[in-house]
Amino acid sequence: MRNLTLLTDLYELTMMQGYFENEDVNQTVIFDMFYRANPEGNGYAICAGLEQVIDYIKNLHFTEDEIAYLKGLGMFKPAFLDYLRDFRFTGDIYAIPEGTVIFPREPLVKVIAPIMQAQLIETALLNIINHQSLIATKAARIVRAAQGDGVMEFGCRRAQGPDAGIYGARAAMIAGCVGTSNVLCGQIFDVPVSGTHAHSWIMSFPDELSAFRAYAKLYPDACILLIDTYDTLDSGLPHAIQVFKELREKGIHPKRYGIRMDSGDLAYLSKKVKAALDAEGFTDAIISASNDLDENLIGSLKAQGATINSWGVGTNLITSKDCPAFGGVYKLAAIWSEAEQRFLPKIKISENAEKITNPGDKKVYRIYDLQGMIVADLIALADEQFSADEPLLLFDPIETWKKTLLPGGSYRMKELLVPVFEKGSCVYESPKVMDIRQHCKEELATLWEESKRFEYPHQTYVDLSRKLWNVKTGLLEQYQTGVSE
Amino acid sequence: MRNLTLLTDLYELTMMQGYFENEDVNQTVIFDMFYRANPEGNGYAICAGLEQVIDYIKNLHFTEDEIAYLKGLGMFKPAFLDYLRDFRFTGDIYAIPEGTVIFPREPLVKVIAPIMQAQLIETALLNIINHQSLIATKAARIVRAAQGDGVMEFGCRRAQGPDAGIYGARAAMIAGCVGTSNVLCGQIFDVPVSGTHAHSWIMSFPDELSAFRAYAKLYPDACILLIDTYDTLDSGLPHAIQVFKELREKGIHPKRYGIRMDSGDLAYLSKKVKAALDAEGFTDAIISASNDLDENLIGSLKAQGATINSWGVGTNLITSKDCPAFGGVYKLAAIWSEAEQRFLPKIKISENAEKITNPGDKKVYRIYDLQGMIVADLIALADEQFSADEPLLLFDPIETWKKTLLPGGSYRMKELLVPVFEKGSCVYESPKVMDIRQHCKEELATLWEESKRFEYPHQTYVDLSRKLWNVKTGLLEQYQTGVSE
Repeated sequence: MRNLTLLTDLYELTMMQGYFENEDVNQTVIFDMFYRANPEGNGYAICAGLEQVIDYIKNLHFTEDEIAYLKGLGMFKPAFLDYLRDFRFTGDIYAIPEGTVIFPREPLVKVIAPIMQAQLIETALLNIINHQSLIATKAARIVRAAQGDGVMEFGCRRAQGPDAGIYGARAAMIAGCVGTSNVLCGQIFDVPVSGTHAHSWIMSFPDELSAFRAYAKLYPDACILLIDTYDTLDSGLPHAIQVFKELREKGIHPKRYGIRMDSGDLAYLSKKVKAALDAEGFTDAIISASNDLDENLIGSLKAQGATINSWGVGTNLITSKDCPAFGGVYKLAAIWSEAEQRFLPKIKISENAEKITNPGDKKVYRIYDLQGMIVADLIALADEQFSADEPLLLFDPIETWKKTLLPGGSYRMKELLVPVFEKGSCVYESPKVMDIRQHCKEELATLWEESKRFEYPHQTYVDLSRKLWNVKTGLLEQYQTGVSE
Repeated sequence: MRNLTLLTDLYELTMMQGYFENEDVNQTVIFDMFYRANPEGNGYAICAGLEQVIDYIKNLHFTEDEIAYLKGLGMFKPAFLDYLRDFRFTGDIYAIPEGTVIFPREPLVKVIAPIMQAQLIETALLNIINHQSLIATKAARIVRAAQGDGVMEFGCRRAQGPDAGIYGARAAMIAGCVGTSNVLCGQIFDVPVSGTHAHSWIMSFPDELSAFRAYAKLYPDACILLIDTYDTLDSGLPHAIQVFKELREKGIHPKRYGIRMDSGDLAYLSKKVKAALDAEGFTDAIISASNDLDENLIGSLKAQGATINSWGVGTNLITSKDCPAFGGVYKLAAIWSEAEQRFLPKIKISENAEKITNPGDKKVYRIYDLQGMIVADLIALADEQFSADEPLLLFDPIETWKKTLLPGGSYRMKELLVPVFEKGSCVYESPKVMDIRQHCKEELATLWEESKRFEYPHQTYVDLSRKLWNVKTGLLEQYQTGVSE
């Protein structure tokens, strides 16, 4: 396991030393990780990356090499460097499980720890969750556009470095891809890998037909032939059909066979290809396509009647090209008061109402209707109690006149944040990726179609409990008074 | 060192087995890595990532775990799996050194190896070079927009996974950033790291002034105070000035001191901040800013007379947000013929002239004028000889009527591709990142201003030698004849 302890912004360490030197402010605190807006105007996001955060936290420690490096920077004192030697994470972490549908402004991860610890982990935690949630959300869009056809993740060569290839493919699998070309991802996470051959395979043989025959001989059970090296309709297609006929004549009936196209007018070509394959009785052939695909192009090809039934998606998926960053942030929400023996809520003010943080020690409920569909999310204080037998008033935290009263017995509630670390010990076992994928599929089924459409989707309400709203409003007023003093 | 041998697309392995089974096509081949268009309509790119490619190639081997995994996939035969046990890279690699200015369609990396080896490394080689060249190119734009002010790389929390943070910061340093917040990058590559404190530092103290004082006490020599936690002009600025005065009264004159702003109207605020600092005699204070900056916003702030003199750039740099993928490809250029004892050139046809590959074993020359400025690049066959004493005819390989004749003695030539591996042994020592950064600075100085502007830059000519053009045209004609037969 890689030690990513120094995968942190320098200011986390300079602040740590500051807290080390100022013991009275080295309190236990609560930080929330949340995001402010869905990427690409989507109606939701899919959270992912928790397993890698857990690995990171478990392995968090400073080796002598790292301490020597920090010493060499000339800004850290010996006592602090000594302290780092025995540094371990001893706090609590709560998180929303991977593959869950999430919405803006609700805590995805809640960290309760001495501020020195909570601060150090900010950078890596954001890096990991931001990346994988971004790719999972993009992949969910692409998988939806494919309307049940398989989507393969093909993008490693264009990913932003090795990890982006490996963990991006992991996130894509979580969100519903049927496989990845990335062998290392397959090995680490036990997910299906697939792939056939490249143009270079064809070019390295004397002619296309010999190349196809050699491939079919070796992989009769997964015989997908790339037909666009020389000319798709005049050369690749007839040669592929010839090879399929030869297999049939030998009594070989491949489990999976068909063609792949990586260029040209995919709508036009796929119809011609389908007609020619059908005419020869190859009605169950796979017709797969790649070439700068994304959810919009797949949707357009579907609308044009393209007969493609398998999609290989590379660059646009693995980089989330239209929106390559997920804006997750990590904000201080509360500080433990020894005097009052409770967490004092903290707020970060901004001129933009959406950027004002939600203070205090919080939990998140998902509200479902009795059919199991999402009604709204509710952020409440951690010590609040609710019963679904009682009426629940939901109101928009900014436009407070927008209210909905859910009668008792008309809804169900589920807490989203689950314990992951308790006093530094991991109490959560990450499911296997293919199980997270199943969970994600079930999650997406709780989301209204109106929330899943690409254009102007319904934005699910994320409301505050009355008690939390009062705390927030109180702090805002206190702050305003402070400024006017 | 991580073993990234399985960081490959499955089809590289299925093709490898195909070549293993078809010995007559397991020839030594030449693959070129090149790219087709500069990102964001830029006039050039900066290549980066070679050091990581070298590490990857040096460490290329299949462990028993990896072989067991491949065996479990059920598609590889025992003889092939046995062969993998002793697999090593035994070929030659040539590459353009990191930090060099590069242009579309010229080989950045040339691999000469048995096709099984050359094929396996495609995915990781593209992944690494594409990523770092993308970020280096973006960073060069941002550094240029800052007109000599320091640009800090701040983006780890929004990078696409840990490697994207680490190697993205490396690439940003190569292209001219003055430092990174990424401590792990600093440790691995010995580059300057910097950073001060976050809003949470301020919020964890009873008040802003105490937080500033505690920070200044600990870091008197690098005292950059973040002034926008509560109110930039009414609270943060006067408190910061008070702390600088207190330092001055104590006779402390910090090497670096000043303020940072992470929100608000940076043009307006920076002018107010500068005036207030100047009025108190703090004329050399650093005024640093961050918040969704990129080259366009920095340019706009400069044009508005913003007094910012230090820029922290995060998301837009580390993800190359406007264009998050570098389209490097890896194409077969030649196959060794035992019969003819020479490399036979190979070409990949496309309906798009720009997508037709350049065949053969090639080298790349950069042509300079006598003042050392770039005139053009010339791709030639590896066995061609040139002398700068003789006239050189340059002509556009597509629009061939566009010609320039350089008189002998009026230009200089430099070969760009240098040997990196010879018969599997590394013969190249990667310079330190800060030395690559210096090389990159010198490289950018050879590029005309017209090539560096952001809008409609001059696109430097990349021409083919007459001999190479003849080979290419010949193959195209041969192919056309073949099709019409």
